[in-house]
Amino acid sequence: MRGSADNQTVRERQPGGDLAKGESKGEQTRRTIVSRALSLVSEVGWEGLSIGVLAEEVKLSKSGLFAHFKSKEALQLGVVQEVINRITLNVVQPALAAPRGEPRLRVLFEKELEWIRGEAGLRGCPLQKAALEYHNRLGHPVRERVVHAFQDWRELVARCAKTAIGEGHFRDDLDPEQFAYEFDGITMMYQQRQGLMRDRDAADHAQRAFESLLNRSRRSPRAR
Amino acid sequence: MRGSADNQTVRERQPGGDLAKGESKGEQTRRTIVSRALSLVSEVGWEGLSIGVLAEEVKLSKSGLFAHFKSKEALQLGVVQEVINRITLNVVQPALAAPRGEPRLRVLFEKELEWIRGEAGLRGCPLQKAALEYHNRLGHPVRERVVHAFQDWRELVARCAKTAIGEGHFRDDLDPEQFAYEFDGITMMYQQRQGLMRDRDAADHAQRAFESLLNRSRRSPRAR
Repeated sequence: MRGSADNQTVRERQPGGDLAKGESKGEQTRRTIVSRALSLVSEVGWEGLSIGVLAEEVKLSKSGLFAHFKSKEALQLGVVQEVINRITLNVVQPALAAPRGEPRLRVLFEKELEWIRGEAGLRGCPLQKAALEYHNRLGHPVRERVVHAFQDWRELVARCAKTAIGEGHFRDDLDPEQFAYEFDGITMMYQQRQGLMRDRDAADHAQRAFESLLNRSRRSPRAR
Repeated sequence: MRGSADNQTVRERQPGGDLAKGESKGEQTRRTIVSRALSLVSEVGWEGLSIGVLAEEVKLSKSGLFAHFKSKEALQLGVVQEVINRITLNVVQPALAAPRGEPRLRVLFEKELEWIRGEAGLRGCPLQKAALEYHNRLGHPVRERVVHAFQDWRELVARCAKTAIGEGHFRDDLDPEQFAYEFDGITMMYQQRQGLMRDRDAADHAQRAFESLLNRSRRSPRAR
C-alpha cells in the first residue's frame, strides 16, 4: 500500500505530456535504486547505506537520485517497504489463498521457511538486521516501520490461529497470541540454524516443532 | 578459556622486572579497550568498529592500541570473547551450579531471559548482531567464532536435556536436540518481543511456552 502511495508521488512529480511513459520509466528507475540499495544493505548494513555510493552504482547523479528519494531515511524506508512487499507477495498472499484454519497456517509456515531459505541470498533477513541496528533508537522511522511490520505479522499469525478455532480445527481455549509467539520462535530459530549455522537438521527440527505446536493446538490432539 | 590464553599472551609480552604490576595495568587497559569497543559495536556495528576512533575514545595512540590488538579482527574477536565470557559468568555458571536435570534447565532459562533483558542496555545482543552482519561471509573469523559459540550453546542445552532424561525427569524417547531447538526458539523470540517490540506480554508468553516445553518433555506430563 505504501508502495502505491510512493508511486503516486512519482506520478505527481512527472511533467505533463507523455505521462504514462514517463511514469513507467520513473518507476523502473525507482525499482533499480531500491533493488541495488537492498543489496548494499546486505553488505554494509542500514546505517552504512550511502546515497553517494548508491548513485554511482546505479549510474545516477546524486541529485538524480534525490529526485526519487529526498533523504537517506526516505531511501531506507523505501527499501524496508520493498522487503515487506516481497514477504507479502511470497508468504502472505499464498497463505491467504489457502483454505482457512490449519491448512492456511501450514502454507504460511511453509512459505515462511521458503522465504528464509531464499533470504540467505540476501545475507540474512534485512528486517531482522534493521531490528538489531535500530534496536534502542526509539522513534527512528526505520525502527518504527520494522516494529510495525513485525506487529502486523504477529497479528496475521494470531488471526489465522483464531480462524482455526472458528473452523473447529483448534481447541476453543487456545490463546492465539501464545500460538503466534511459539510459531514465530520456530521460524526465527530456523533462520539462525539454516542461514547462519548451515545445520542440515534445521528443516527437520523446524517441521517437528511445528507439528508439535499444531498437535497441542488441536481440538483432539493425536497421540504424541 | 580463551580469555586466560589471551592474558598469557599479554604476560609473555611484558618485559621482566615489575611483572605483576605491569601485567595488571596491561590487563586493565585491555579491559577498558574491549569494554569501549563493545559499546561502539552497539552503535556502529561490527564492521564499523574503527581502531582509530576507538584509540581516541580510550585516549591511546593508534600504536598503543595496536600493542594490545594487532588488527581490527583481533579486536573484534576480543570483543566477541568478552560477550561469551559474560554469558558464561551470568548464565552458564549459575545453571551448572543448580541441581542436574529440570532444575538446571529452569535456571538456564531464567538466567538467559535476565541476560536478554540486560542486553537491551547493549542495544541488542552483540552476538546476534555479528551473526547477521557476517551471515554469508563463510570463513570470516568473527562469523566462525560466533557460529562456534552458538554451537557450544546448543550443545549445552541439549546436554542439560539429556541429563534430565538420565535423572528420570524427562521421558526416555525425548530428542535432546529437538528440545534445544525449541528452547532456543522461545528465548530468541523473547529477545525480539521484549527488546525490540517492548511487548509487555513477552515474559508471560516466554514462560508459558517454556512450561509447555517442559511439560511435554516430562516422563508423566501434567494435565494441560
